[in-house]
Amino acid sequence: MQLQTLKGFRDFLPPQAAARQWLKGQMIKVFEKWGYEPLETPTLESYELFKGEIGEDEKLFYKFKDLGDREVMLRYDQTVPTCRVIGQYFNKITFPFRRYQIQSNFRAEKPQAGRYREFVQADVDIFGVASPLADAETIAVSLDLYKSLGFKQVVAVINNRDLMKNIPYAAISAIDKLDKIGPDGVIANMVSKGITPDLAQKYFDEVKNIQPDETINTIFDYLKNAGFPPDWYRFQPTLARAFSYSQGPIWEIVIPEYSPGSVGGGERYDSLVERITGQKIPGTGIAFGFDRTLEAAEKLGLVPQFKTLTQILVTIFSPDLYSPALTLSRSLRQGGVNTELYPDPNTKLDKQLKYASAKGIPFVAILGPEEIEKDIVTLKNMASGEQKTLTQPDLISSLKSTS
Amino acid sequence: MQLQTLKGFRDFLPPQAAARQWLKGQMIKVFEKWGYEPLETPTLESYELFKGEIGEDEKLFYKFKDLGDREVMLRYDQTVPTCRVIGQYFNKITFPFRRYQIQSNFRAEKPQAGRYREFVQADVDIFGVASPLADAETIAVSLDLYKSLGFKQVVAVINNRDLMKNIPYAAISAIDKLDKIGPDGVIANMVSKGITPDLAQKYFDEVKNIQPDETINTIFDYLKNAGFPPDWYRFQPTLARAFSYSQGPIWEIVIPEYSPGSVGGGERYDSLVERITGQKIPGTGIAFGFDRTLEAAEKLGLVPQFKTLTQILVTIFSPDLYSPALTLSRSLRQGGVNTELYPDPNTKLDKQLKYASAKGIPFVAILGPEEIEKDIVTLKNMASGEQKTLTQPDLISSLKSTS
Repeated sequence: MQLQTLKGFRDFLPPQAAARQWLKGQMIKVFEKWGYEPLETPTLESYELFKGEIGEDEKLFYKFKDLGDREVMLRYDQTVPTCRVIGQYFNKITFPFRRYQIQSNFRAEKPQAGRYREFVQADVDIFGVASPLADAETIAVSLDLYKSLGFKQVVAVINNRDLMKNIPYAAISAIDKLDKIGPDGVIANMVSKGITPDLAQKYFDEVKNIQPDETINTIFDYLKNAGFPPDWYRFQPTLARAFSYSQGPIWEIVIPEYSPGSVGGGERYDSLVERITGQKIPGTGIAFGFDRTLEAAEKLGLVPQFKTLTQILVTIFSPDLYSPALTLSRSLRQGGVNTELYPDPNTKLDKQLKYASAKGIPFVAILGPEEIEKDIVTLKNMASGEQKTLTQPDLISSLKSTS
Repeated sequence: MQLQTLKGFRDFLPPQAAARQWLKGQMIKVFEKWGYEPLETPTLESYELFKGEIGEDEKLFYKFKDLGDREVMLRYDQTVPTCRVIGQYFNKITFPFRRYQIQSNFRAEKPQAGRYREFVQADVDIFGVASPLADAETIAVSLDLYKSLGFKQVVAVINNRDLMKNIPYAAISAIDKLDKIGPDGVIANMVSKGITPDLAQKYFDEVKNIQPDETINTIFDYLKNAGFPPDWYRFQPTLARAFSYSQGPIWEIVIPEYSPGSVGGGERYDSLVERITGQKIPGTGIAFGFDRTLEAAEKLGLVPQFKTLTQILVTIFSPDLYSPALTLSRSLRQGGVNTELYPDPNTKLDKQLKYASAKGIPFVAILGPEEIEKDIVTLKNMASGEQKTLTQPDLISSLKSTS
């Protein structure tokens, strides 16, 4: 058997998994500070739910028939299932409803650098508010998130899809690719979809000349009052967003130090909510790419190192001395210290020390016959090689203060 | 369109999702205190990986062909993928390797109370150690977890599958159902699998008469030294575990106050690791049912209430006064207070107060023309109805101390 993940799928070994857990914790802290609360939906949904809602990317669905012959699919995004939730639990939900959702989504993309078939998205949305203050707030949450993570500058690039009402969707989805394919590519893409070259140029020019309207100015005013510097948000008429459900304000979040591409994007989607729920409930919000955000933070040195989470290894000096070692590890844990007891009494001490060194565990405790007689512990600092002896209470309090 | 989850799948609305997040955090804290580190594996694996490893439950696999015509399946458990990881990254992993994994697993079970098709498991395993101290440690982690959660008593019920070497798997998997189907059911189950009634009775009697061996006694000795009361662990010869890969020590965790059924179970599975990785690496550990654990903790009143995570709602007195409200909400958040700003300036104040009341937000801030002139805030305690005025810095510090 080949020991490998499926293409486009990933394992996260402990240091990476710990970094992901850290980022998730940071996101949750910011989202909850703004009053957003967690929602979880199933990994599997009926295909009927997503059918027709996503635009040209429906070919990326992980769709299959389950044992009951139902057409089901893996979660493609978190917006559509949340709309289902809003409709299904309509009477249990208090509006305005703010929720965040941080789960895996699945798209059968061609595997390439930075694109995965299972990837985590972090969504922040408000339901029940038509005011542009709601759009502005989710943009502010985004800027606050990246600010809290330590990025020096984050930019919200904003447009209003309503100002493109006279432009057909085929042209909008071509203009959405501008960053990747350039102006000539945009025209060519429209032409390939059956738009005449003249009309293509006309649509492109029209979009380039869009001016900010009152909605955009209200959002800018909010962001200014929320304390963000003026170069953290700007209008960009060619920002298009390829989702067929985008309407009203649309925006993307860019980290200039990291890449010209976006780490997140959002829009208003009132009619999507209405189509799915049958209720007139406005909806707006943003989805962050968890992987891109982590990659950006790692590149800029903003992520703590997680070589190991263990603070100390308690060694077993010899098989007959495992009981005092066990007692020591218990006291350390009761003192709140992340402690490993070497789990095999028959392993030689030097091999136990080598294990601590290979794993990057900062301290090792040794409890030999001498230490036990004197009621002390030998503590070895693995980085400096320095050894000292101290009492168990002193050991615990010294490790507490370094943690 | 029917707005519903697929049968056996669940949504978690904010109060429930927050409780789940809380439990996950508690588990992570305990696991890391014992030196276990996080691992994440993909939701989708190749079918080949699980094929033949699970025993009679293979019919529960969520299996399908992906767009590349590969036979793939949703993660059935976390033990098998971890064995894949061990083999695939063998040279990058330092042994003994302790890992925890808390992810969704998928089984096409008949939906019934407490059984879900997508459910979270929390696994804690050690690889690379043949000593029963490793088995004992994962049992100790389990007892420590439930102790930390506040349960008054947790019992590890322990047996050694090696003591059943002369009993065929068909008989073992029948005895495993003893709690559910009773002694007569066990015999009938064996007979239905082609074992003669006499032989069935003989196997059952043999198992009932198994006595603890040295391995079991070593585990008991560890648990005693680790400080657990004597009624927190016991030998049970009829404990069988239905996994075909179980070998050596096997155990289940029972919460007597909650239910006679188990909230977790584990075993040694050295030969499974070897079969998958091609390497002679011992493996042992436990899987906890996340849902059963949460249900038990909720029933016994051990889970904090999460009606809302928001501490205060800042209202917008009138559309022209939204800017000072925004500034106040910003200061509150900077002070670490979970703060909602009402997101619509055109909503009447009493409707905003009704929203806070319906959502259970404990405090509401009001900033009218009078408050703004005097540079104060009116704070309303929603539970008592009491109102008082205070300065912004006093407001922030008073909320900090209640959080």
